[in-house]
Amino acid sequence: MASSEPPTASQASLSSVDGVADDLAGTTLSKKQAKKLAKKESKEERKQQTSASATAAQDDSAEADPFAANYGEVPIEEIQSKAVSGRVWTEIGALEGQLSGQSVLIRGVAQTIRPVSKKMAFLVLRQFTSTVQCVLSVDKESVSPQMVKFATVLNKESIVDVEGIISVPKDPITGTTQQVEVQIKKLYCVNRSVPNLPINIEDAARSEKDFEKAEQTGVQLVRVGQDTRLNYRVLDIRTPANQAIFRIQCHVEDVFRRFLRSEGFVGIHSPKLIAGSSEGGAAVFKLDYKGQPACLAQSPQLYKQMAICGGFGRVFEVGSVFRAEDSYTHRHLCEFVGLDVEMEIKEHYFEVCDIVDRLFVAIFDDLNENCKTELDAINRQYPFEPLKYLRKTLKLTFEEGIQMLKEAGVEVDPLGDLNTETERKLGRLVREKYDTDFYILCRYPLAVRPFYTMPCYDNPAYSNSFDVFIRGEEIISGAQRIHLPELLTTRAEACGIDVKTISSYIDSFRYGAPPHGGFGVGLERVVMLFCALNNIRKTSLFPRDPQRLTP
Amino acid sequence: MASSEPPTASQASLSSVDGVADDLAGTTLSKKQAKKLAKKESKEERKQQTSASATAAQDDSAEADPFAANYGEVPIEEIQSKAVSGRVWTEIGALEGQLSGQSVLIRGVAQTIRPVSKKMAFLVLRQFTSTVQCVLSVDKESVSPQMVKFATVLNKESIVDVEGIISVPKDPITGTTQQVEVQIKKLYCVNRSVPNLPINIEDAARSEKDFEKAEQTGVQLVRVGQDTRLNYRVLDIRTPANQAIFRIQCHVEDVFRRFLRSEGFVGIHSPKLIAGSSEGGAAVFKLDYKGQPACLAQSPQLYKQMAICGGFGRVFEVGSVFRAEDSYTHRHLCEFVGLDVEMEIKEHYFEVCDIVDRLFVAIFDDLNENCKTELDAINRQYPFEPLKYLRKTLKLTFEEGIQMLKEAGVEVDPLGDLNTETERKLGRLVREKYDTDFYILCRYPLAVRPFYTMPCYDNPAYSNSFDVFIRGEEIISGAQRIHLPELLTTRAEACGIDVKTISSYIDSFRYGAPPHGGFGVGLERVVMLFCALNNIRKTSLFPRDPQRLTP
Repeated sequence: MASSEPPTASQASLSSVDGVADDLAGTTLSKKQAKKLAKKESKEERKQQTSASATAAQDDSAEADPFAANYGEVPIEEIQSKAVSGRVWTEIGALEGQLSGQSVLIRGVAQTIRPVSKKMAFLVLRQFTSTVQCVLSVDKESVSPQMVKFATVLNKESIVDVEGIISVPKDPITGTTQQVEVQIKKLYCVNRSVPNLPINIEDAARSEKDFEKAEQTGVQLVRVGQDTRLNYRVLDIRTPANQAIFRIQCHVEDVFRRFLRSEGFVGIHSPKLIAGSSEGGAAVFKLDYKGQPACLAQSPQLYKQMAICGGFGRVFEVGSVFRAEDSYTHRHLCEFVGLDVEMEIKEHYFEVCDIVDRLFVAIFDDLNENCKTELDAINRQYPFEPLKYLRKTLKLTFEEGIQMLKEAGVEVDPLGDLNTETERKLGRLVREKYDTDFYILCRYPLAVRPFYTMPCYDNPAYSNSFDVFIRGEEIISGAQRIHLPELLTTRAEACGIDVKTISSYIDSFRYGAPPHGGFGVGLERVVMLFCALNNIRKTSLFPRDPQRLTP
Repeated sequence: MASSEPPTASQASLSSVDGVADDLAGTTLSKKQAKKLAKKESKEERKQQTSASATAAQDDSAEADPFAANYGEVPIEEIQSKAVSGRVWTEIGALEGQLSGQSVLIRGVAQTIRPVSKKMAFLVLRQFTSTVQCVLSVDKESVSPQMVKFATVLNKESIVDVEGIISVPKDPITGTTQQVEVQIKKLYCVNRSVPNLPINIEDAARSEKDFEKAEQTGVQLVRVGQDTRLNYRVLDIRTPANQAIFRIQCHVEDVFRRFLRSEGFVGIHSPKLIAGSSEGGAAVFKLDYKGQPACLAQSPQLYKQMAICGGFGRVFEVGSVFRAEDSYTHRHLCEFVGLDVEMEIKEHYFEVCDIVDRLFVAIFDDLNENCKTELDAINRQYPFEPLKYLRKTLKLTFEEGIQMLKEAGVEVDPLGDLNTETERKLGRLVREKYDTDFYILCRYPLAVRPFYTMPCYDNPAYSNSFDVFIRGEEIISGAQRIHLPELLTTRAEACGIDVKTISSYIDSFRYGAPPHGGFGVGLERVVMLFCALNNIRKTSLFPRDPQRLTP
């Protein structure tokens, strides 16, 4: 039984979005208010559902309607694996002019339902990032007034099957992505949504421009707050921008994997449950592992290095990374997807920088070429300037960076770290001077890097390390690692680390260890910064921060 | 700073392989013994290292040796990113006859070092799954007796750079994968291993056949136990079979991802930290999340279903799955890599079975076509019969399976679950009758499936669910899910679940939910059963079971 599916309700009990809250006023309700409202709505909803299905049943049974078979609820058996009909569904995104005059079957979400009269109604159906306008109009062959009524009492976001004929209207359609209409001949409800949704998809999909326009014309629009969005994420992710964001995220991972595989890297999976309670303390999630103290991995650092010592040459990992940090910023999460790379170095850590350079240029190129629809969808809601990057990524030294800041009147400790503000400032200076939003800053001061970072051969105050920036924000951190047990011990001691606690780490390098280096990236940050989104919660499907563990 | 790398020693302190244990007798030492031995060896090692480098230094400084520049330790600066020389290294796997007479530069691991005389020595160098024989022989142009001595005092598993000329010997070489020899002209030690390794790679790489042969000839061979292997995984994974296993694992993931992407699936990442302490209790790892009770996800079930309700149509996830089960079997782990799939169903859960069918045939085909070297390497150490599978995967109903067992004299509860033994028996019967090691068993009794499984339309004693078997072992579990809140509530109640605790799960289906289904697979099990390996610890890079949390 069940290799990877839980046998009980355990999974299901883990989220705690209680009830249904209405955010029409654009403000977030208190938990108590929300619960109260939810109870009330839940009652109403049950009432309405009962009456709706009763209506449908009446319509169905009405002998007066010769077209009763052309609409109604899909019987439960038909979506319960009774039979394979052989019918073919067409995707909404594939509905184009060349299908004009043809009959199609589509399954989609009833995004909007607009009654025009008792004899006519418009429906907009949505699937993924595509929408199409459907017209239901009483005729003598298939559509009755009862059928129009059935359509208009459907709740928004219900799942429906539509059979209809494709037609191409004279004027362009502004409200949908597809430039055809579907003349509905049959309409069935596959799954009925509740009448009062906690979030309206149209509200959630609005852009700043919409708000500006509305304000000018005196219209009051609902603004869905970030928290409300996350509370009802199952609705929020239906917006075109969100559909696009997570498709782009998947694309980034595709290219990451494909590029590295073509360069001889092997994908590995390292454990997330690791021994010890860890000194780091605050930033680590601790747990009990069968009586042993354990914690969740803050990075696959040790394991990817062990894979290199184990003879894999070049490895990467895509996996969960856990940070129990208290940072409540626009760019920190308690759990994120780490893209980690580690590789043998023949002579120089620039070999690692070279991979970063070519990998990210490949990712950016691919997104620009193959994700136009998705980037447009994001742009419509969250307008952004395309990322500027060079064919060969700019590489500056930390000292050069400091000098640029100095010349711009910003004094920085030459052996200290940059803070978020100076990083942004430097990003602006680099953009002005080199016309790029993406660059590598290398040769960081040793003191601000982890103890296992290889010092520079010519000056131990600096290290063979680098950070990479997109739009002035740090996105990648990488370095050559110390592969010599003695030097590693010395450096650990110098950093005030009790060497006994890391003896097994140091021992990994005693059995023949190749020089090596690597880097780590957060997948969510790549997407956030490529699209210039203002919050990392927008690029995490179900984000975790110090205040959010659900849904 | 550091986006995905920890800033402190925390990571490094998390593993606890203490000291160095010698397993030459084929038995595992007690911890105390091991520590004692480790101390002793550590001392000896330091002595030997000192003397070795002293020797090298003497040799280097010996004015008597005109070829002193052709060998020695690589100065630290040269592997500390001093300069980019532009030299080109050739991979050992690329050393072939057509390079005969050419000079190459290779970096590899000194797997064996065999002195023949004071004037000659053989080295076998290894890289990934490839090995090559190198010959060091005193001549008048580049190799001195001191250089031969330098080579023979190198410790096994040290990393070396060799410059040499490729030659093709008359007779085939049996001991290495590459059928050429390298006449060494220059030899540098990049990183020196300790003289006494806790595991000898040759021992760890031996096959059962080697043991049988040795026994016949009265030779006593060292057998490295599974626990010792895992304790010194950084050495163990250097064997050709292990290098192959994890390369195959990566390949499985490649095909999984590529196939699903080509079928319109979107890769997602769901959170592993989830709210609640969960009823499941025993099987769940619990932790404290900023003051809230939390646990580690036992599967992405809820989240992949939410992604479907969120309009993604078809999703998959490759991610960590945590099970705090106490099972200490050959096929259970406390942490594994889950391959999860969820998709909209138009009419029938066979649409999901169809994906399983084509996906796995694609994976098996690809491994057989593109991983011949790796499969050979595994076969040499762990001989196995190739997996038998059909072009169109066999699908039997649970009732048919029961009937086959009955006819073979095995009585099974027709509405109960199969145990491991009957599953194996059925696997043998299916193989005899249908000539396949891979098949789908569908329409399981409802009572043995999770509460969210869709019942059959015609008989609620059965469900729209399936398991998939490889070589008589269950590898995949899948089903149509209940997408109707009312039915879900009824089923949860019938299964004795407090509906209040899963209200948010049920609520996810109130906003328009398409019919859907999916399945889950463990990546480690796929590789284990494809290669007929006897223990899942062989296919997990750093396995976690109730007794193992390190390294």
